[in-house]
Amino acid sequence: MIRATTIREVREAVQQARREGKSIGFVPTMGYLHDGHLRLVDTARRENGLVVASVFVNPLQFGPNEDLQRYPRDLERDAHLLMQHRCDVLFAPSVEEMYPRPMETVVDVARLGQPLCGRSRPTHFRGVATVVAKLFHIVGPDRAYFGRKDGQQVAVIRRMVEDLNFPVEIVDVPTVREPDGLALSSRNVYLTPEERAHATVLYRALQWARGRILEGVRSGPELARGMAEIIGAEPGVRMDYAEVVHTDTLEPLEHLEGRVMLAVAAYVGKARLIDNLQLTIRGDEVLE
Amino acid sequence: MIRATTIREVREAVQQARREGKSIGFVPTMGYLHDGHLRLVDTARRENGLVVASVFVNPLQFGPNEDLQRYPRDLERDAHLLMQHRCDVLFAPSVEEMYPRPMETVVDVARLGQPLCGRSRPTHFRGVATVVAKLFHIVGPDRAYFGRKDGQQVAVIRRMVEDLNFPVEIVDVPTVREPDGLALSSRNVYLTPEERAHATVLYRALQWARGRILEGVRSGPELARGMAEIIGAEPGVRMDYAEVVHTDTLEPLEHLEGRVMLAVAAYVGKARLIDNLQLTIRGDEVLE
Repeated sequence: MIRATTIREVREAVQQARREGKSIGFVPTMGYLHDGHLRLVDTARRENGLVVASVFVNPLQFGPNEDLQRYPRDLERDAHLLMQHRCDVLFAPSVEEMYPRPMETVVDVARLGQPLCGRSRPTHFRGVATVVAKLFHIVGPDRAYFGRKDGQQVAVIRRMVEDLNFPVEIVDVPTVREPDGLALSSRNVYLTPEERAHATVLYRALQWARGRILEGVRSGPELARGMAEIIGAEPGVRMDYAEVVHTDTLEPLEHLEGRVMLAVAAYVGKARLIDNLQLTIRGDEVLE
Repeated sequence: MIRATTIREVREAVQQARREGKSIGFVPTMGYLHDGHLRLVDTARRENGLVVASVFVNPLQFGPNEDLQRYPRDLERDAHLLMQHRCDVLFAPSVEEMYPRPMETVVDVARLGQPLCGRSRPTHFRGVATVVAKLFHIVGPDRAYFGRKDGQQVAVIRRMVEDLNFPVEIVDVPTVREPDGLALSSRNVYLTPEERAHATVLYRALQWARGRILEGVRSGPELARGMAEIIGAEPGVRMDYAEVVHTDTLEPLEHLEGRVMLAVAAYVGKARLIDNLQLTIRGDEVLE
């Protein structure tokens, strides 16, 4: 595995692979990798000649009172895991390499960044869109892989790619969960054992809603209300949101039809956790 | 010359050239080509294996009361001229091809788009940055060619490319002028013969300032004031601005040193015309 810290190094590695006729798969991450990330790498590995993963904790997507400083980092462990999963290039730039001077340019997918997590993190998705645009220009991938757990992020990036004609295919990869349903997240390390037990309420709320949908419920507000009640009743958990939206537009759905995302977020101890469930509904039929 | 109207067609032409090891030069235009545009094409021709020119009157960069509807168009004449200048691919998409649905994504180089022309055209450079980002993703050029006459546009695009790591080299090409100094512009067709005579005041103001600089004047405000007086005194001309700024940051300069742009704009009849002069100043030395 090539370990690149500069833009020049990663471009050289990609150009070499291009000359050999290889397709490029790209997995952008903030590091502290878990099995969810590694599933992205494995998927990219199957579908491409060269696999590039980036590890970069992007300051631009953190708000002023968020966890930028204490976000967990362990680059040597990440490099070891990526090597085991046959990643070809690890791009781990410094903040200075990515932002050598203050940014004047922003990429913003305005309306898609505002609902859901955007309400508590108003500049987050602008920071995500901007760094992903940079990384796409640096790496030049054919396909880029994102975890479905970050459902709003996937919607924002898909829309950015479509609106701006990026020549990149966006692949979203199913969420990896613990045996009790908790979605894997680098931020789960913030949880005490007790908080860890309560955190499964997000998954339980989603599973409750899934059960109701399979029983025939199609009312978005009814399902949102039910999930909110479940999360709100859990000790040590403060609900942020529980919503039922269109997977691509993120608009709230009165009636469930087409691509549906059940999206939840809550504060548990020092962590803000998110999760979602995505379904395609055609009348009585529910595709998972 | 290949005439492409769809994104797919132009991408296929570029991919074919890439396979043949050719570099790609790109000249984005709004059509109604004049010798200024053709100098861009000639420069691109000398420096690249494949030359792509686009003709697209981009609605996004026109304000609500601007000249989008009456902007001059003559695609057959443009195609003929491009062929004569050995352009390889003409990309002339419809508005629907470029904007199949309402845009949610914007690319904005906020601070650079606000001064100078940005004051009378507050959304213009956002529209320019966004369409240029789209065109760069569609064409995938190694080099892109812009006229120096649009000095603020060049500054905005250079900064966007740098901030977002576009793998594109921006080449600015000197302004082509009529024998009496008027900078070529597709909007010059709006001028009556009488207005046409008055329009040279922009060039005369710049030349006055140039003369003062060669005499040793280094005060930005003094030069700006002098240019404003010359333009203000011209019958049938309403001054928009006359400024002395840094060529890259567009910040007003008290003292002339480094990369300097003298920038002027005025309304003449139905036309809003701009012009500029760029110099590099190192103490007593003036490089043109």
